[in-house]
Amino acid sequence: MNQHRAITAPPVSLGERLAATRTLTMALAAPLSEADACLQPCPDASPAKWHLAHTTWFFETFVLRDHVPGTRPYDERWPFLFNSYYEGEGARLARHRRGMISRPSLAEVRDWRTHVDEALLRALPSFGPDAAALVELGIQHEQQHQELLLTDILAGFAANPLEPAYDVMAPTGGAMTSLVPEASGDGSPWRKGDEGLVAIGAETGEFTFDCEGPKHRVWLEPYDLAAAAVSNADWQQFIADGGYTTPGLWLSDGWDWVRREGITAPLYWDADEGTSFTLAGRQRLDPAAPVSHISYYEADAFARWAGARLPTEAEYEVLAARENSAGGNQLDRAEAVRPRAGGGLFGDVWCWTGSAFLSHPGFTPAEGTVGEYNGKFMSGQMVLKGASCATPRGHSRATYRNFFPPTARWQYMGVRLARSR
Amino acid sequence: MNQHRAITAPPVSLGERLAATRTLTMALAAPLSEADACLQPCPDASPAKWHLAHTTWFFETFVLRDHVPGTRPYDERWPFLFNSYYEGEGARLARHRRGMISRPSLAEVRDWRTHVDEALLRALPSFGPDAAALVELGIQHEQQHQELLLTDILAGFAANPLEPAYDVMAPTGGAMTSLVPEASGDGSPWRKGDEGLVAIGAETGEFTFDCEGPKHRVWLEPYDLAAAAVSNADWQQFIADGGYTTPGLWLSDGWDWVRREGITAPLYWDADEGTSFTLAGRQRLDPAAPVSHISYYEADAFARWAGARLPTEAEYEVLAARENSAGGNQLDRAEAVRPRAGGGLFGDVWCWTGSAFLSHPGFTPAEGTVGEYNGKFMSGQMVLKGASCATPRGHSRATYRNFFPPTARWQYMGVRLARSR
Amino acid sequence: MNQHRAITAPPVSLGERLAATRTLTMALAAPLSEADACLQPCPDASPAKWHLAHTTWFFETFVLRDHVPGTRPYDERWPFLFNSYYEGEGARLARHRRGMISRPSLAEVRDWRTHVDEALLRALPSFGPDAAALVELGIQHEQQHQELLLTDILAGFAANPLEPAYDVMAPTGGAMTSLVPEASGDGSPWRKGDEGLVAIGAETGEFTFDCEGPKHRVWLEPYDLAAAAVSNADWQQFIADGGYTTPGLWLSDGWDWVRREGITAPLYWDADEGTSFTLAGRQRLDPAAPVSHISYYEADAFARWAGARLPTEAEYEVLAARENSAGGNQLDRAEAVRPRAGGGLFGDVWCWTGSAFLSHPGFTPAEGTVGEYNGKFMSGQMVLKGASCATPRGHSRATYRNFFPPTARWQYMGVRLARSR
Amino acid sequence: MNQHRAITAPPVSLGERLAATRTLTMALAAPLSEADACLQPCPDASPAKWHLAHTTWFFETFVLRDHVPGTRPYDERWPFLFNSYYEGEGARLARHRRGMISRPSLAEVRDWRTHVDEALLRALPSFGPDAAALVELGIQHEQQHQELLLTDILAGFAANPLEPAYDVMAPTGGAMTSLVPEASGDGSPWRKGDEGLVAIGAETGEFTFDCEGPKHRVWLEPYDLAAAAVSNADWQQFIADGGYTTPGLWLSDGWDWVRREGITAPLYWDADEGTSFTLAGRQRLDPAAPVSHISYYEADAFARWAGARLPTEAEYEVLAARENSAGGNQLDRAEAVRPRAGGGLFGDVWCWTGSAFLSHPGFTPAEGTVGEYNGKFMSGQMVLKGASCATPRGHSRATYRNFFPPTARWQYMGVRLARSR
Repeated sequence: MNQHRAITAPPVSLGERLAATRTLTMALAAPLSEADACLQPCPDASPAKWHLAHTTWFFETFVLRDHVPGTRPYDERWPFLFNSYYEGEGARLARHRRGMISRPSLAEVRDWRTHVDEALLRALPSFGPDAAALVELGIQHEQQHQELLLTDILAGFAANPLEPAYDVMAPTGGAMTSLVPEASGDGSPWRKGDEGLVAIGAETGEFTFDCEGPKHRVWLEPYDLAAAAVSNADWQQFIADGGYTTPGLWLSDGWDWVRREGITAPLYWDADEGTSFTLAGRQRLDPAAPVSHISYYEADAFARWAGARLPTEAEYEVLAARENSAGGNQLDRAEAVRPRAGGGLFGDVWCWTGSAFLSHPGFTPAEGTVGEYNGKFMSGQMVLKGASCATPRGHSRATYRNFFPPTARWQYMGVRLARSR
Repeated sequence: MNQHRAITAPPVSLGERLAATRTLTMALAAPLSEADACLQPCPDASPAKWHLAHTTWFFETFVLRDHVPGTRPYDERWPFLFNSYYEGEGARLARHRRGMISRPSLAEVRDWRTHVDEALLRALPSFGPDAAALVELGIQHEQQHQELLLTDILAGFAANPLEPAYDVMAPTGGAMTSLVPEASGDGSPWRKGDEGLVAIGAETGEFTFDCEGPKHRVWLEPYDLAAAAVSNADWQQFIADGGYTTPGLWLSDGWDWVRREGITAPLYWDADEGTSFTLAGRQRLDPAAPVSHISYYEADAFARWAGARLPTEAEYEVLAARENSAGGNQLDRAEAVRPRAGGGLFGDVWCWTGSAFLSHPGFTPAEGTVGEYNGKFMSGQMVLKGASCATPRGHSRATYRNFFPPTARWQYMGVRLARSR
Repeated sequence: MNQHRAITAPPVSLGERLAATRTLTMALAAPLSEADACLQPCPDASPAKWHLAHTTWFFETFVLRDHVPGTRPYDERWPFLFNSYYEGEGARLARHRRGMISRPSLAEVRDWRTHVDEALLRALPSFGPDAAALVELGIQHEQQHQELLLTDILAGFAANPLEPAYDVMAPTGGAMTSLVPEASGDGSPWRKGDEGLVAIGAETGEFTFDCEGPKHRVWLEPYDLAAAAVSNADWQQFIADGGYTTPGLWLSDGWDWVRREGITAPLYWDADEGTSFTLAGRQRLDPAAPVSHISYYEADAFARWAGARLPTEAEYEVLAARENSAGGNQLDRAEAVRPRAGGGLFGDVWCWTGSAFLSHPGFTPAEGTVGEYNGKFMSGQMVLKGASCATPRGHSRATYRNFFPPTARWQYMGVRLARSR
Repeated sequence: MNQHRAITAPPVSLGERLAATRTLTMALAAPLSEADACLQPCPDASPAKWHLAHTTWFFETFVLRDHVPGTRPYDERWPFLFNSYYEGEGARLARHRRGMISRPSLAEVRDWRTHVDEALLRALPSFGPDAAALVELGIQHEQQHQELLLTDILAGFAANPLEPAYDVMAPTGGAMTSLVPEASGDGSPWRKGDEGLVAIGAETGEFTFDCEGPKHRVWLEPYDLAAAAVSNADWQQFIADGGYTTPGLWLSDGWDWVRREGITAPLYWDADEGTSFTLAGRQRLDPAAPVSHISYYEADAFARWAGARLPTEAEYEVLAARENSAGGNQLDRAEAVRPRAGGGLFGDVWCWTGSAFLSHPGFTPAEGTVGEYNGKFMSGQMVLKGASCATPRGHSRATYRNFFPPTARWQYMGVRLARSR
């Protein structure tokens, strides 16, 4: 992608975007066997087949059933299996049992996808704004599950002592970096943040998730944001300096977690060997690339060790708003999925912030079952900003609020430091 | 107490305040038998004897040992038993085993207290500002444990099917209310909040805990705060309306908790009988009194049911700053400890806010072991503001930040609603 | 099968029996998809693919590696995956992670089986008695896993709300019953047992598992054994009579289990509908067929309710020794796998005894790693005797000792009553 | 005690024995503070005060209520607190909450004891055989709780890092050994057992617990029993030889337990220091004294290491029947409670057998609620024979069946080896 194409490309229709999204999902699942697609390594990670089916259930339920008269479910026993957490849609399979669904088969789920895709594309021209908005929501929802599909496969393959590779590792391309604005023009490791009264949060207008709005004012004291994400080399120093064995660096809950789980390095690392397990199998760590697969507790301890702190959500967002959110190292089929050096505020790894995932002032959830979307997860989670190498390009925004509990590590999660000035 | 005395009382010296605090603690423990004082009903609650000893350990360690040359521990095996969580002070008894310390006896702990008190009062005149500041910290710390001593005894007695009473329930006094400013002059159920740029957080100067500062600016959109805390009668309506069985009212984690624990009412309630277990034994609910012993999840669900929301910490604090923080229904030996109707923003129950317990901008923890004080608990907890009927009078401030995990209920915890305007 | 063939069949060679066993295993796996074969519904149940591989690892390790010079493992990373519990053979995959082995694929495991089969058959003619004995052990071991493969698949499919069928249910054949000796000639519900000094346990000579010997004397007081296993109709009466809600009928551990797990019927039953989940999908209960999928605790409670007791191992064994152990309703490809009415002491369901699985007097485990076979499981388990509908015909013996913990239900487990006379 | 006294002592009446038993219990509790008496270090161990109350509840319920017309409970709320496990007697406090009963106080429980004792002694003369049998059962039951009171106090004090002593350690007396028959006349380490058809189990006549009978025949193959229990010195050799780190010595469940719990020595040992925590505080190990506080798994592993095995219950019982069951090192107020060298089959430590605790042939539990006595615990436990240093003298019999789960260690449990001849 380059600036020219971005400028001259014709507007892409909703139908085209729907088709492209649905196609990409199947392409991501292509390297998987029937058994690979059924792996559930832990309750948080879902089988790839479940992602394929759940995203289809979303369209069948909230778009076709509710907006295309006469639609009947493809198989009336399947909604029980593929509803994720919508209480309003009735009983559902316990989350930790998703790996037990050896049937319907991958082929049957693929047929269901085709069936629903055809019905959607047939009905699309007649949709009013409400139905179209739900199609847009379904696309965005499916993009989220594309990222999860990759991170869940990574977790599933990591649970196999043979450490199979999902895909080959492409040579590091230089092309990508041209997209990335120089982090700071002057080569300084810090980038000056905005201060005073700023506005964050999403305006109404283009698509955003409910929790991103409303737009509102916050007051920022002077601060700096690091020009680069913390790298693997930085993290190796933290380990060498006893980072994981110094209780004073850790939050109390974090220290309990480190000892209980025996944590000594980021997830998937073999710190002694200097390798990490990746979608391309076990690979040597790239010292310059952003560290990934760290928890909030690790990010926080690292920041304390480094004499810095995590940025707040607002601090990250106001700077991110000046970057191209579709730039950076994000999910493209042409490139292997892995964090790379040199990126900006979108791509490589989601960055932990020091802000809890709570509602913006004035937040009101959407009406109806779809309203269970994000509001009900507003406890016990921290906000991550930016985008990762597994985030579909085009899915990112400065106002985007990713969120996970402070122990989560199986996503592409990293850290960018901040300091008060 | 009346306004006159408050005005004319001479300034109280540090030594006097130390003595008064140490004496009150022993008075609170007076009704307890040796066995009562050893009860640990759950890992979060500590035995009363442990509170008596831990607060003494705090003075012996951080004041006497560090500031009075030649001090030796009263018994060198005891610090292991009575250190709470200070990693810097070495190994310590696992928290959930505090109930196993049948020895030293209550009498031995009492003797230790006397010994330390005498050493403190002897050394006090010679203390410089650092040591004096640690005495002040020790007083404030002990006041926190006074409240915990009461709530832990309540939890301990509640675990006994005989439901013994800690103390008799005094008749509801009318005197108390004279201290409380009318919640809103005009009888409206809502009180208008400040808006725009306001300052919250503690200034340096008088004593505050580290996490209360620094003072900083925040931007508030227009809002109202309820003139009264949610009452027992309000809560009975919530129950009658299916509050505990309607998933749409709850955060996802909250709904899991309600079902896993079989929650159907506030802690200590017998909803069918209309009673609650209290320090005076089982008592009829006072419909007008603030509801107490509810979790954050319950407070949040109630607010959603009521079409309102929880206030943020800043929203509560700016209004609280206008009230007398030593007023209201707080811990006085003259009155039974229970929430009462008609109170203001200090007293009766701590109020859950919708703000996570995270650092204020610019926060830096104190140096040394004492620096483990609050900063390391900044994850997984929500802020509560105000004060409760078990908070020692004089311990409260508008900037005070109490914090507990969202499932905690054994404190005097309630809720006051807010709404955006 | 008919009596003629049984009588006139020529003696079967070790090689033929090896080939037949290995072929049957693959036939049992034939209806399974790649994903079905990877299902692990609980830590006790292993994926079908794991059974295919583990039995192959057994031959490759203990026969080929140890007795065919120059043998190298087919893949040197696989022993880690497919060792079950042999400490002497080094580290191994945690049991509960067997479902994570999506690779090697089913096809790769199939190729491994073929490779090992060919090597075994090639080497067989040159084997001395030690190696031949290990081949025999490998056959018997694989027969055990054939039964487990079926019961584990049943458990795996039961975890899928769609309740897929492994195989169609063949019509109940009458041919089978001709093999079964009339339980008692006189139509009495009880059959008189031997009394006084009897011998049980296996003699040296033909193949038996180590724990079956040595032959030894035990003294039996007069007793009767029921002529028939407890039936589904009997069990429905037990349920109707409050069997699952009467604490006095249960062992203390059993009653705790019933309440903790919410047990109200045999595993896989829908007692209200009068159905059970089977390898042929959900089916109506046959009232006359033996009840299956009950725990020891349930068997024991039923016996108490019926005014009887469980037989001891010796009581069962001396009567079983008079029956044809290859008769009855056992695993034949021609017939659907399910318990049927009218059977004798071998077939339909394994029968719980009141005897703990402990060593016979004079027991000594085999030398070497293979010696880990049975002795190390002699704690916390009860003996079951006979054979089930999933036990390969020819695998049964009167001296056979099956054993499971008292809560296990996923095998074809039933009960036959006894009484002292 | 000597043979003369035993012969000439006048017969002791039921009332005298009742009084002596009730008095001894109070004497055992005498060194305990109110808080000591409330300690519950784990769910299996009960507070001393609970033992005092529960044994009193037993008499009040099964003797006074059922056999003395007009008896009312001393306090009608207490049966809920002090019923142990009798389902027939209604709801009761959860076992693990017994440590929460700080009230009634020790003094109140003492008063209850006095009240019940007086009522019992008053009514005793008028009792028929049924009531008298229940008094006898109550005495025996209280003797069991005397032993538990001591072992539970030991466990409670062990949970306190200060390791308080219950009582002083008396000098090792030589007097005791005169009571003990020479284990084998010829100085051999092995003692020849009976063989062939022998009778074990209790006859009707004098008092025994239900599970001890009926008397029945068993066949014994030739065997030897060790002349002495395994000693602390033996156990130190086992440790030095890698006993706790050699999986091949252990039952599979035992090995899991060793690793999960990090077991490296008997309970209460500091193996490096060569000490053990005892009722007299931490003491040096006596090399010649029997090892104590070992689990069944440890006993079994030791036997395998020593090239021997555990005796069966019958093997132990037939030899024990020839010894004076009131001899040996048992509970006497004159001597400190600890295992000593040189003892016979009764005293010092209970000996683990290789027999599961199951019913003797022909066993029928007593009628009514008292019938819940032993039968319902017949699963998951192993039999121990003999008596320990904490068993009240006079409570022992050759037919006595003590039983615990294979992981239990807090009793005085040891091991005496056997071998087949």
